[in-house]
Amino acid sequence: MDLATVIGIVLSFGLVVSAILSGSSLIIFISVPSFLIVIGGTLGAAMVNYPMGYVIGVIGVIKNTFFSNLESPVNIIEQFKDYANRARREGILSLEPLIKEIDDEYMRKGLQLTVDGLEPQTIQEILETEVSYLSERHATGADVVAVLGTLAPAMGMIGTVVGLVQMLQTMSDPSSIGPAMAVALLTTLYGAILSNLVFNPMAGKLKARSKEETLLREMIMEGILSISKGENPRIIEEKLNSFLPPKDRVSSD
Amino acid sequence: MDLATVIGIVLSFGLVVSAILSGSSLIIFISVPSFLIVIGGTLGAAMVNYPMGYVIGVIGVIKNTFFSNLESPVNIIEQFKDYANRARREGILSLEPLIKEIDDEYMRKGLQLTVDGLEPQTIQEILETEVSYLSERHATGADVVAVLGTLAPAMGMIGTVVGLVQMLQTMSDPSSIGPAMAVALLTTLYGAILSNLVFNPMAGKLKARSKEETLLREMIMEGILSISKGENPRIIEEKLNSFLPPKDRVSSD
Amino acid sequence: MDLATVIGIVLSFGLVVSAILSGSSLIIFISVPSFLIVIGGTLGAAMVNYPMGYVIGVIGVIKNTFFSNLESPVNIIEQFKDYANRARREGILSLEPLIKEIDDEYMRKGLQLTVDGLEPQTIQEILETEVSYLSERHATGADVVAVLGTLAPAMGMIGTVVGLVQMLQTMSDPSSIGPAMAVALLTTLYGAILSNLVFNPMAGKLKARSKEETLLREMIMEGILSISKGENPRIIEEKLNSFLPPKDRVSSD
Amino acid sequence: MDLATVIGIVLSFGLVVSAILSGSSLIIFISVPSFLIVIGGTLGAAMVNYPMGYVIGVIGVIKNTFFSNLESPVNIIEQFKDYANRARREGILSLEPLIKEIDDEYMRKGLQLTVDGLEPQTIQEILETEVSYLSERHATGADVVAVLGTLAPAMGMIGTVVGLVQMLQTMSDPSSIGPAMAVALLTTLYGAILSNLVFNPMAGKLKARSKEETLLREMIMEGILSISKGENPRIIEEKLNSFLPPKDRVSSD
Amino acid sequence: MDLATVIGIVLSFGLVVSAILSGSSLIIFISVPSFLIVIGGTLGAAMVNYPMGYVIGVIGVIKNTFFSNLESPVNIIEQFKDYANRARREGILSLEPLIKEIDDEYMRKGLQLTVDGLEPQTIQEILETEVSYLSERHATGADVVAVLGTLAPAMGMIGTVVGLVQMLQTMSDPSSIGPAMAVALLTTLYGAILSNLVFNPMAGKLKARSKEETLLREMIMEGILSISKGENPRIIEEKLNSFLPPKDRVSSD
Repeated sequence: MDLATVIGIVLSFGLVVSAILSGSSLIIFISVPSFLIVIGGTLGAAMVNYPMGYVIGVIGVIKNTFFSNLESPVNIIEQFKDYANRARREGILSLEPLIKEIDDEYMRKGLQLTVDGLEPQTIQEILETEVSYLSERHATGADVVAVLGTLAPAMGMIGTVVGLVQMLQTMSDPSSIGPAMAVALLTTLYGAILSNLVFNPMAGKLKARSKEETLLREMIMEGILSISKGENPRIIEEKLNSFLPPKDRVSSD
Repeated sequence: MDLATVIGIVLSFGLVVSAILSGSSLIIFISVPSFLIVIGGTLGAAMVNYPMGYVIGVIGVIKNTFFSNLESPVNIIEQFKDYANRARREGILSLEPLIKEIDDEYMRKGLQLTVDGLEPQTIQEILETEVSYLSERHATGADVVAVLGTLAPAMGMIGTVVGLVQMLQTMSDPSSIGPAMAVALLTTLYGAILSNLVFNPMAGKLKARSKEETLLREMIMEGILSISKGENPRIIEEKLNSFLPPKDRVSSD
Repeated sequence: MDLATVIGIVLSFGLVVSAILSGSSLIIFISVPSFLIVIGGTLGAAMVNYPMGYVIGVIGVIKNTFFSNLESPVNIIEQFKDYANRARREGILSLEPLIKEIDDEYMRKGLQLTVDGLEPQTIQEILETEVSYLSERHATGADVVAVLGTLAPAMGMIGTVVGLVQMLQTMSDPSSIGPAMAVALLTTLYGAILSNLVFNPMAGKLKARSKEETLLREMIMEGILSISKGENPRIIEEKLNSFLPPKDRVSSD
Repeated sequence: MDLATVIGIVLSFGLVVSAILSGSSLIIFISVPSFLIVIGGTLGAAMVNYPMGYVIGVIGVIKNTFFSNLESPVNIIEQFKDYANRARREGILSLEPLIKEIDDEYMRKGLQLTVDGLEPQTIQEILETEVSYLSERHATGADVVAVLGTLAPAMGMIGTVVGLVQMLQTMSDPSSIGPAMAVALLTTLYGAILSNLVFNPMAGKLKARSKEETLLREMIMEGILSISKGENPRIIEEKLNSFLPPKDRVSSD
Repeated sequence: MDLATVIGIVLSFGLVVSAILSGSSLIIFISVPSFLIVIGGTLGAAMVNYPMGYVIGVIGVIKNTFFSNLESPVNIIEQFKDYANRARREGILSLEPLIKEIDDEYMRKGLQLTVDGLEPQTIQEILETEVSYLSERHATGADVVAVLGTLAPAMGMIGTVVGLVQMLQTMSDPSSIGPAMAVALLTTLYGAILSNLVFNPMAGKLKARSKEETLLREMIMEGILSISKGENPRIIEEKLNSFLPPKDRVSSD
């Protein structure tokens, strides 16, 4: 569970609502048609912008911003020190029974290729291709959400211009100008809120997460290659530690 | 047929029209001269911005956003496993009769060069040049549409300023200000709609498609090079699988 | 002659003028001082922004957007097939008499270096340096025009703010507000037109052209290097074809 | 202590306050609810945008903009000349006792690996991974602050639109329009000040600092590798000097 | 002396002043407090944005936009042809007496390393490090000025919002609205002028200059490496010529 996402949304929406309530009732800020134009138009344009599968997938992507289950890099370093020691003492084939217990598919596949005796360079090619396309898929997920963040204020602006044109065409009664314009501005407000409090920050979180996962994958790749080259456990530890900030490193003893 | 493009356009335009109809008749939003200024000015500037061929070609490019016929990556992996097995058992020349049946020109050319016995490095150079210029041509197609998406709101703004200047020069009759300004705003509205609901999302779809096609081409190149180096069918499968998300992979058995 | 540039400018300017004429006379949109501020201020800031030579050179650069004389890639492939065949049959020195007839300086120089017997790697270094600095010079030319496209609306905005300040200071007579503001808006209009209908699209055309010329230079370099390595004419054809879209390729027979 | 940050903030805020005081009392510019909306909404959206740890860490990151303790590059060059001379005269193991006295962890680790006799290439890999992830962590810190700088004016704009809608709905009393709009504008003002005078410049300083630290790390890496390759002290000096502007270089004698 | 900078500033400021004088006296556009807010706030934020040394250094950087003293590339080619001939005829040590007469420190250092007999690869490393950090220092100088160009309009906007809030709070007397708003707009005008006519173009000139100097340094490096590898003077000439546009090249005879 990513509490930050929940707290952040509650906090920012709470503040906007309390800002509204301090000056008027909430009711004048609620307009279902205005909301449908902004959210529907945004989704419509997103369907033009991306293949159908991506737009449907965006629900899963957004759900991801509420959950997080990356393994700790420290555990990974400990695991690799363990594998490296065992491989040194009992030969690389002794890792075979351990591989089945690994949860992470990427790590399992990489170690399996190592135990199968592939050349380090071939293993590196396969693992690098996988990391690079994983990051690209992550980037695409974040991009879809970021595009929603660009489209929402545009739809809000279109809704406001529509309202303005209608108001200006029928400006005979001056007392109606204010409320009509207030209604016209609601789509702008909805677009700005959806973009700045929801979609853009969510795209940001997906990017931050993707960076962390890519870091983990690169650490795992480095560890697997070191084992496949039969490197010294201490050097493996130094190599993997260099991915982390000094305070998070595993110390040798 | 890319249904997402059709549904997306129908949905977003439908919402804008229903937003209009909920407040006034559609007629006050229709102005053929305003539309001609925005669309014509946009096309005119696009002709200054790109060689003639590109601007004419944009019609074909836009049509592409409604159709899609990429081969499935899973089929490609199966095909390469098959070729690799055959090449191992019966020699690389045994692929010759199969090549003629391949629809995809890129794959056919690459395998032909392999059967002709060219060095893997020469094949790689040729196929890489082709992928890189294919992506560049795709990028250019998407860029032309994206430039239309930049020019349309600029033309809309120019149309509105022209209308404002005319209105301000003849501001003697206050009651005419509203409708005159409403008309002036129409070009802004047209520009915003064309840009945000049509051109920008279409440019986005072209980019998403180009990425998918480039991925396929890179998979095909990897497969061809593996065959030309006589690699093990299982390694080819591992290599090609690493381009795909885990759930889409071809499993070995 | 690049007709697209001419037609594009006539079309977009024609539409703006006809938009004006449909609502008022053209005369209220003409203000020589406003035009001088926008164009003069833009040029002045451009002179601060670039060395003098670049700003003077911009006239030639803009002229380039009206003319175009790139050789066809198909001719270049045919030429190289011819050279490669001759070099194979009669030795590389047999190309010497043909070199003098080549119009394109880059191709002539590259082939001369080949006939002089330089190492392929040295030839590649020289030709790559030349392509890379050619693209950089082109990019600079397009950048100068793009900077004009950024400066023009900024000058337009400065002119409008100056007019607004003057109008607001002397707001005693309400009936004069409209026309004064109309005049103030003219610099914004001029800036938007110069930027969106002239400078930005011209910068775009220069970039599109530069890409095409770079492609040609890279094809020529590939051809020269293939000849200097004594490669098979068929491979040269395959290599050069891979720069082009399938429909434009030279077929082997 | 980074005096520039302190003086800069005092200067810019002082000028804004004195601008206010020259025209009215400060009191009409103070609205605690408006401030809470802007700063709270900004923090809320930042929590959606980044994992919790980053948002909490931003306090430490902002504190960093007030302090600075990078070592001088000149000292580092002197140190390496010293190490290189000693390694040449007395062997690389003679550096061992000096290593313990080094404060900088990166330099200590690199020299320890050298004394331990690792291959220069392995040392380079480890040190490069460390520099590259250090820069990435720095970039992330600066990015969090830069995102605050993007969110603050967005929240300010949302607050102003909320105020506008309320004002327009109750526009019966014209005399209340001015003050209501003045209050609505305060969130825009707060957002602009936080973004332009605080968050964006702080993100800028973090980036400038990160560049300087990366430069130092690259110099140290170059020095360590030169020692591990047993290079001549004079060449080490030349290599390290080339990172610096001519006037800051260490002269040979 | 870079006349373009002087003429450009005189031209653009002259046009703005004459635009003002054509409609009112200059006096209503002069407000020392408004100017202090914009320039002082900009400098204050710049001090938060960069270490103190950079902000103080910006005066020297701006002075650089008025002066220019790069050597001509043609002279450099002639010099290297001369050195190469001499090195061929009389040995590389014969260059020693000439080195002391070279003004350019970079060229002198590179040739000295060559005469000292360092490996071409070591020389290349040292010279490349130097060019790369030189460009980075130049980029930083231009960036500081570009940041001033971003901050100035932001400060102008903050000043205008402050003025608007004050005006709206005291809107009892309608006749005072115009002049109060005119004053409020002055900071916007100052910010726009400083940004578009001064800081941004100056940052542009610094970047253009830096590109030219980097080109010269790369030419010099190429020349030095060719001499250190003992290459043929004609090849050196070809190599150096390829950095230049055809019309500026040195011809062989």
